[in-house]
Amino acid sequence: MNDDKHPLRLPPIESTANGPLEARLRHKIDNKTKPQGALGALEGLALQLGLIQRQETITLQQPQMVVFAADHGIAAEGVSAYPQAVTVQMVGNMLAGGAAVNVFARQHGFALQVVDAGVAAELPAHPQLLQRKIGYGTKNLCLEPAMSPAQARAALQAGMEIVQSLPGNVLAFGEMGIANTSAAALLLARLTGVTIDDATGRGTGLNDQQLVHKREVLARALARHPDATGPIDALAALSDFGGFEIAMMAGAMLQAASERRVVLVDGFIAGSAALVAHALVPQLHDYLVFCHRSAERGHDLLLHHLKARPLLELGLRLGEGTGALLAWPLLQSAAHFLNEMASFDSAGVSGKEAG
Amino acid sequence: MNDDKHPLRLPPIESTANGPLEARLRHKIDNKTKPQGALGALEGLALQLGLIQRQETITLQQPQMVVFAADHGIAAEGVSAYPQAVTVQMVGNMLAGGAAVNVFARQHGFALQVVDAGVAAELPAHPQLLQRKIGYGTKNLCLEPAMSPAQARAALQAGMEIVQSLPGNVLAFGEMGIANTSAAALLLARLTGVTIDDATGRGTGLNDQQLVHKREVLARALARHPDATGPIDALAALSDFGGFEIAMMAGAMLQAASERRVVLVDGFIAGSAALVAHALVPQLHDYLVFCHRSAERGHDLLLHHLKARPLLELGLRLGEGTGALLAWPLLQSAAHFLNEMASFDSAGVSGKEAG
Repeated sequence: MNDDKHPLRLPPIESTANGPLEARLRHKIDNKTKPQGALGALEGLALQLGLIQRQETITLQQPQMVVFAADHGIAAEGVSAYPQAVTVQMVGNMLAGGAAVNVFARQHGFALQVVDAGVAAELPAHPQLLQRKIGYGTKNLCLEPAMSPAQARAALQAGMEIVQSLPGNVLAFGEMGIANTSAAALLLARLTGVTIDDATGRGTGLNDQQLVHKREVLARALARHPDATGPIDALAALSDFGGFEIAMMAGAMLQAASERRVVLVDGFIAGSAALVAHALVPQLHDYLVFCHRSAERGHDLLLHHLKARPLLELGLRLGEGTGALLAWPLLQSAAHFLNEMASFDSAGVSGKEAG
Repeated sequence: MNDDKHPLRLPPIESTANGPLEARLRHKIDNKTKPQGALGALEGLALQLGLIQRQETITLQQPQMVVFAADHGIAAEGVSAYPQAVTVQMVGNMLAGGAAVNVFARQHGFALQVVDAGVAAELPAHPQLLQRKIGYGTKNLCLEPAMSPAQARAALQAGMEIVQSLPGNVLAFGEMGIANTSAAALLLARLTGVTIDDATGRGTGLNDQQLVHKREVLARALARHPDATGPIDALAALSDFGGFEIAMMAGAMLQAASERRVVLVDGFIAGSAALVAHALVPQLHDYLVFCHRSAERGHDLLLHHLKARPLLELGLRLGEGTGALLAWPLLQSAAHFLNEMASFDSAGVSGKEAG
């Protein structure tokens, strides 16, 4: 980052580590009327939520879904099964309430806001649309950096500000942007050392031939950057390969964690935002709930790099934040069992016999 | 079955196969504003629910949870980490609203009923407790058949009758019974040919030494039955190795399917009931939604035998029907996306470009 006129101030994030509270939470969980560990992943989730909230009783309130939309210059290379115009059309579909993210947000009582982070068109005003356009799509990252360092910082900053204005203690982030699995694959390859072939998948449904083409395009993009083989910082990777929606989501995640709010991480694109944000402030990890393992090829490697075990594995590859919403009832279940289940003592149930 | 005085009448179950409806449902699913297949397992689930309900619009109403409780004579062999008294104590905990199944049933709006299928004690009357006791626990199946053929038929019949009196078009079944993973393991081994070592797991939390003991006990039980190496019918297996809660649940599943209601299948014990019921009437399969893959060792093999891909994999091993309840929001999501999502046409969204 050479441009120091607008230095990026990242929000400080506290670790949730707290030995005494963790011991109390584990004791509470282990004394519920069930064999130890019998609620599987819900038990670790309850522990995480309790540590985030610094409480032995979990309260989840006013959950918010924010969908960041933006276009990608690399769409011109034919790396997506759908035309770029679909980004705008799907934003319209979301604002009309017809997309999958709308359906699941209604089901689970999430407030939904769509953010124009950088769609390649003017969007008409709408009560649910927040205008934070950084540019009319990124540049074609095969030819030049996707965005300037100043744009990357502005997008991160916008994401932080959006979260500051939102209520609720659980935030879920979704995205819409034709060709954004290409950006996510490049960020994954660049920040973790995974090969671009391994990082690259079929996105919205490429056939074999189209997948070969996408891999060639992305390999070319990766190679044209002069520092392509050395270490790189997350901001440089974001400028070179990112998208405005990914950068803005990364800023939103950091801000949410700095305010000790729970962050629901959706699939591959949201995962790439988490990867960037985690590289910027590692303590973010404590606040992330990884919601599902996507069918998109690179996601598994991304989750492995972040040492994440997601809650769901349903073969989803839709994005929009849909996987985060589908996992939400499990967070509520984790809270309910911690808050409401009887203990062996209170219920008069005998414990395990000596082994 | 030699005793023909009370022949068992199994309810007829229709296959849900319906080519024209399936084509219409697939068309509807594929034309939602998402890439084809992008909602993963939810798409197959929507198709299954539509076929069960013979509709292109899914309606899920008045979901019911029925927990069958019973004791097992084999508990005397020390095959469980908990004393037999816990069955009665946990029934009390459920009737007081403190068990995990209560918490999740409240969360998801399930009516909850507990059935005394054969607990080894008199239970005080309670509005949520249905008295259908077949016996005071099964016999010790290491020494003699767990129940008589007449008891097996009576339990199946009771399960059918219970379902006949319930409202709603979705039924979830849970169970409580100390030592019932032993019964489930024997049913799995006997009906599928899986070895008893593979079928046997740690249940509520046996240590290594206790697991070795459980395997020895179950191998002995399997060997003492004279027809242990030949083909066996499901009713004979149920009499030799089953439990009253398992038999009653099997009858309940068959009745529910015969009325074209959706059946939510919980973990290993519920899976063993499904295995028995499926062997009795194979068309049952169309109505079963397998909710989760349990951490209990044999469950994976049981699911494989039934060609089932469960919705969740959370490492649960609690039973009670908890896994069925945790999966429930995914059924609602499948219904909502099929019913509510916009199509490409209705939303004015461009389809996939020619590949």
